[in-house]
Amino acid sequence: MERVPILKIGDILLVSIQVDMSDQTAVALQEDLAERIVATGCHGVIIDITALDIVDSFVGRMLSSIASISRVLDAETVVVGMRPAVAITLVELGLSLNGIRTALNVERGMELIAANRYHDDLDEFLDGPDAEPTASP
Amino acid sequence: MERVPILKIGDILLVSIQVDMSDQTAVALQEDLAERIVATGCHGVIIDITALDIVDSFVGRMLSSIASISRVLDAETVVVGMRPAVAITLVELGLSLNGIRTALNVERGMELIAANRYHDDLDEFLDGPDAEPTASP
Repeated sequence: MERVPILKIGDILLVSIQVDMSDQTAVALQEDLAERIVATGCHGVIIDITALDIVDSFVGRMLSSIASISRVLDAETVVVGMRPAVAITLVELGLSLNGIRTALNVERGMELIAANRYHDDLDEFLDGPDAEPTASP
Repeated sequence: MERVPILKIGDILLVSIQVDMSDQTAVALQEDLAERIVATGCHGVIIDITALDIVDSFVGRMLSSIASISRVLDAETVVVGMRPAVAITLVELGLSLNGIRTALNVERGMELIAANRYHDDLDEFLDGPDAEPTASP
């Protein structure tokens, strides 16, 4: 069985999907990714699908599943590199990739993740970790 | 024919080889990579071979060829993610990957490229772009 490599770059895990995904490969990828998120403490997962000519419902479900798993492990998932034809086909098939964020390329995906982390930090900083409601007396 | 995707991250082009390389795929990758180096002006190429179980003489030649092409385009190539078994087999086969730099993972590869660029910049800064020999009169 082929395994999709997971590359760590700073605070981000990068996965470039190039092979046809079977059930086994998809499950292995989910398990590997979950383990790597926990082991590294990364806060972002970028999945590059430049090499994919087709995103069918199986791949769509796999991406949703990875995004959900990452979310409960406090990591955000961004899918990057979608081809124009793939986007058109997705809409025609009625697949909307619910709950999955997308970006044009890896760099923009990294910016998106960094911006969200900064935003979270800022909110916590402004509100304080145990902020009390600012009701007037 | 499958094409290996090339991802741009900052000043670096990242290639993750996951499929078996045929002659055609190898030639296409070299052409794509040369074009992307010229188009983006990147100074580093990182080739990840985590997914490869075997590096034979064909793949070895391809890596050498990519490194040579990149070098004349002012980009440095670093091969990362080599498995222990692959390293052992390479030595047993007598393939030494001449002229190819290696690093343990993508992050270390990026550090290596950044350090070399800095070193080059520093040399130029110290010597000056048109430094003359400091012979005493």
